[in-house]
Amino acid sequence: MNELSHPTPTVTCGPLPASTKIHVAGERHPGLRVPMRRIALHPTAAEPPVTIYDASGPYTDPAARIDIARGLPRTRADWIAARGDTETYAGRRVRPEDNGFAEGDRLTPEFPALPIPRRATKGAVTQLAYARAGIVTAEMEYAAIRENLGRSTAATRDGEAFGAAIPDFVTPEFVRDEIAAGRAILPANINHPELEPMVIGRNFLVKINANIGNSAVTSSMAEEVEKMVWAIRWGADTVMDLSTGRNIHNIREWIIRNAPVPIGTVPLYQALEKVGGVAEDLTWEVYRDTLIEQAEQGVDYFTIHAGLRLHHIPLTVDRVTGIVSRGGSIMAKWCLHHHRESFLYEHFEEICEIMRAYDVSFSLGDGLRPGSIADANDAAQFAELETLGELTQIAWKHDCQVMIEGPGHVPMHKIKENMDRQLEVCAEAPFYTLGPLTTDIAPGYDHITSGIGAAMIGWFGTAMLCYVTPKEHLGLPDRDDVKTGVITYKIAAHAADLAKGHPAARLRDDALSRARFEFRWEDQFNLSLDPDTARAFHDQTLPKEAHKVAHFCSMCGPKFCSMRISHDIRAEAKSKGMLEMAERYRAGGDLYMPAD
Amino acid sequence: MNELSHPTPTVTCGPLPASTKIHVAGERHPGLRVPMRRIALHPTAAEPPVTIYDASGPYTDPAARIDIARGLPRTRADWIAARGDTETYAGRRVRPEDNGFAEGDRLTPEFPALPIPRRATKGAVTQLAYARAGIVTAEMEYAAIRENLGRSTAATRDGEAFGAAIPDFVTPEFVRDEIAAGRAILPANINHPELEPMVIGRNFLVKINANIGNSAVTSSMAEEVEKMVWAIRWGADTVMDLSTGRNIHNIREWIIRNAPVPIGTVPLYQALEKVGGVAEDLTWEVYRDTLIEQAEQGVDYFTIHAGLRLHHIPLTVDRVTGIVSRGGSIMAKWCLHHHRESFLYEHFEEICEIMRAYDVSFSLGDGLRPGSIADANDAAQFAELETLGELTQIAWKHDCQVMIEGPGHVPMHKIKENMDRQLEVCAEAPFYTLGPLTTDIAPGYDHITSGIGAAMIGWFGTAMLCYVTPKEHLGLPDRDDVKTGVITYKIAAHAADLAKGHPAARLRDDALSRARFEFRWEDQFNLSLDPDTARAFHDQTLPKEAHKVAHFCSMCGPKFCSMRISHDIRAEAKSKGMLEMAERYRAGGDLYMPAD
Repeated sequence: MNELSHPTPTVTCGPLPASTKIHVAGERHPGLRVPMRRIALHPTAAEPPVTIYDASGPYTDPAARIDIARGLPRTRADWIAARGDTETYAGRRVRPEDNGFAEGDRLTPEFPALPIPRRATKGAVTQLAYARAGIVTAEMEYAAIRENLGRSTAATRDGEAFGAAIPDFVTPEFVRDEIAAGRAILPANINHPELEPMVIGRNFLVKINANIGNSAVTSSMAEEVEKMVWAIRWGADTVMDLSTGRNIHNIREWIIRNAPVPIGTVPLYQALEKVGGVAEDLTWEVYRDTLIEQAEQGVDYFTIHAGLRLHHIPLTVDRVTGIVSRGGSIMAKWCLHHHRESFLYEHFEEICEIMRAYDVSFSLGDGLRPGSIADANDAAQFAELETLGELTQIAWKHDCQVMIEGPGHVPMHKIKENMDRQLEVCAEAPFYTLGPLTTDIAPGYDHITSGIGAAMIGWFGTAMLCYVTPKEHLGLPDRDDVKTGVITYKIAAHAADLAKGHPAARLRDDALSRARFEFRWEDQFNLSLDPDTARAFHDQTLPKEAHKVAHFCSMCGPKFCSMRISHDIRAEAKSKGMLEMAERYRAGGDLYMPAD
Repeated sequence: MNELSHPTPTVTCGPLPASTKIHVAGERHPGLRVPMRRIALHPTAAEPPVTIYDASGPYTDPAARIDIARGLPRTRADWIAARGDTETYAGRRVRPEDNGFAEGDRLTPEFPALPIPRRATKGAVTQLAYARAGIVTAEMEYAAIRENLGRSTAATRDGEAFGAAIPDFVTPEFVRDEIAAGRAILPANINHPELEPMVIGRNFLVKINANIGNSAVTSSMAEEVEKMVWAIRWGADTVMDLSTGRNIHNIREWIIRNAPVPIGTVPLYQALEKVGGVAEDLTWEVYRDTLIEQAEQGVDYFTIHAGLRLHHIPLTVDRVTGIVSRGGSIMAKWCLHHHRESFLYEHFEEICEIMRAYDVSFSLGDGLRPGSIADANDAAQFAELETLGELTQIAWKHDCQVMIEGPGHVPMHKIKENMDRQLEVCAEAPFYTLGPLTTDIAPGYDHITSGIGAAMIGWFGTAMLCYVTPKEHLGLPDRDDVKTGVITYKIAAHAADLAKGHPAARLRDDALSRARFEFRWEDQFNLSLDPDTARAFHDQTLPKEAHKVAHFCSMCGPKFCSMRISHDIRAEAKSKGMLEMAERYRAGGDLYMPAD
């Protein structure tokens, strides 16, 4: 499409069924309005509405005025300025190569209301630096409130947390302490004031990331902004813009200015565009320029493949699928061509100095992750992990926030070793994994092959799960693929929270199960991760409104509804007579004994 | 639809892409022709074709003449007759109530070529009885050959089997011994000669079951026969006909006569129809009559809820979702109404006598399985499991084959306890689970919530996984739902085989990954579980034939293909110079040391 003919694309807005956006106020920072989603239940339900985590931003708030060309309110601007440790400055001028030399109709228009960039006057302005100084920032309190889902009581604890220590209630101090310990990050670039702060760590709710981004082959700014809004509507906690090809500077600006969630990127992709896609022509200077360009725009975390070192490359030679990380393969090619150590590794401390001046968090990339079951947990993968552990210490030395990226393709019996090694080698820095995919034989269904691995590694302690869509290995995900990927990963993350014994996780399951048992079909739909699909499936066979209170569904039909029968049983069972009778039978013992 | 207007429905036939049906001959029983699917690879592939397990029957064999009104060839008839321990007889006459008193246009026509039923002249004619007598039946050899996938060599063993003992190669004697030990079953009713024998056990490939069946609300014979053929086309190893409502006798006959896979049913459903859907009107006589009716038709395994006893019912009173098993709720209602012990439990030995006269296998039903995360692993569930263990011993005493049904809704941290207890309490009889679903909050996506649990419990030792479709809890699955459910469960079963370290499991993953790495797109599609969908997704962005050999896809575009870059790297890396250089860097040590 011609972007100029659609200067301001429209995005999906409006609340989900039966849902209201509520805002919880802060205590330490009275101005805070922390959004949550309240799901109303049917009047016949003898229970209160259910409040859940809400990553969807103002788009689901009917009271919000949405104008993509204006961007979201810059709520954090005052908090950041008030800290008095940053300054505004002219900033880097946009150059033609930033947009791949796109011109005229092919150039995505610049975002109309460009903000003035800000940077640290000196030292680190990271949430880690504040946490270490004992400061509870507004961002920390905001994230703490979100984690409690508006609860006043703690649910029963029941789970196996594998060493995670999730508190009954998350306090702002707990968020601070987890960040100070390096066990959690709060990705929040000072140039992304539109952000609704959230925390990523093993002792918090498991988060999910959705990847969007155009490629040289397809898609546009309008589509990408809508994909971002669509992804968070269904629950994506962070979004990575993996755009390549042209217009990536301008597309990214539109995305960040309209994003209430942290935005991540892989700066190497744009750096490669700047040198015409020739890996060996990459230089530290081009890369450094790209880091500053994106830090000024407000990217919250950078995937940086500094762990892939020259001497690791020979370890990949006998792999079935070689190097499958884009960033990893680009850096490997550079190292090999020049027979030199990676410039990302050699300049790592300079990178830290840039990151801490804007509070861009590190997502240390696993350039050597396995791309097949055959390559899982091999020498190349774990050699790189050792280096990521070493770089984590260096980043922490500079007060930079760090999370570690993980695989990939891993069979079930090798998943836990990935988690255990990462915790040990990277000193409990948050783990952020792609899947893992538990088999290679289902292209077209890799949201499922990976959803299995994601649920398991999330249970074992992974803090954030990067989604995989049905298009993985086959093409660029469209809007439907993004939704399917997000819902699948919400399932994996929630299954992990349940298994870890998160004190609030089961509340929604129990509310939905009670609705199911009481034939409150509307409540069952509204409490589900995807109310639209649940309702549509039910409508396929029982479209009438009357069916939405029917004591059966088309799966079994009226005569066979076990739940309906259960109600009769329950009524009778309450009568003492039945219990006595049962007692008598129990006393009577078994009619048969095992034939030894 | 009016069945009479379509007396012979058509079903989906023809091979899958690049696939040929091959037949492996037997040794002990030279007449055997054991079907397998051979997937041809592109001429540029420097490797042989891949042979996989084939549950699809003659429908994917272009050489087969398919006529639904004639049914499949009765291959086993000679084997059964040759054993000389059975007789043909008049059999039970079909009564109006067998089809719910359907008449005229509403009556599904009788299958045109009804076979004469057969039963044991005396004692047991079960595969268990033969195995215990040291006999290797043709069925056992047939199943053994299938398990080896035409391999001549064993792949590397790599996995955690949790006590399972999977051999490098499966011999007919091994199948016999596993059946004799009760660790495996070979469901094969002597009145189902169309069957292609298969084995279900923890030391064999993990199998999956697909449920079909009409309900009082919707669907017809033509649809159900096609659903069965469609389900096995995508890999269902067994099919359960859960029909309720009218015409179930005639619909079942059409299904069995055209089924190359074992067919399972829940006789209680039809028995309830015979008494007008009033649970308390059920009698042992009506149930017994139904067992014989279905045994004569050739049903291979019966779900029998004999483990739910009167004194268990009070244990369900405080559950969030009560009793969610249809059969369980019907029996509970009967017990409660009459204040009597279950007639299934009291007449269990008589049931065994019927089962062994036709070799119908027991699938002991878990009428008290949990229907929500809140009810998982509770007292009711495990009390019933104890009774199932007791009944297993009684069935074995009568030479009856037994598998045990399992949950249900179970969070990840409670799944392994289900497997461990079942192995202990039921003396390693094969476990057959529904999912389990790992969260309650995703109606519309329960193939995924349950696929996670199914992969895990399959890894832990479950022998067969009963699929869950996207319509679970919402409606009756249609053709698309059946396919989605089957593919999802093939993923779960295969992920489990990989994690258990099955010697043949990884061959297909590795072949597909090599195809992926070598940009043999056609091979990647053809080796996948669903070639049609994989190809369609790729075509959405790169439809041209030229793209099917392109060294990139639309996900990353040409500049960014990590695999393409990997090939350059591999070429260079082979050069000694590079390795020396890497060596020098390694010797040089790290440029940075961890902070303190």
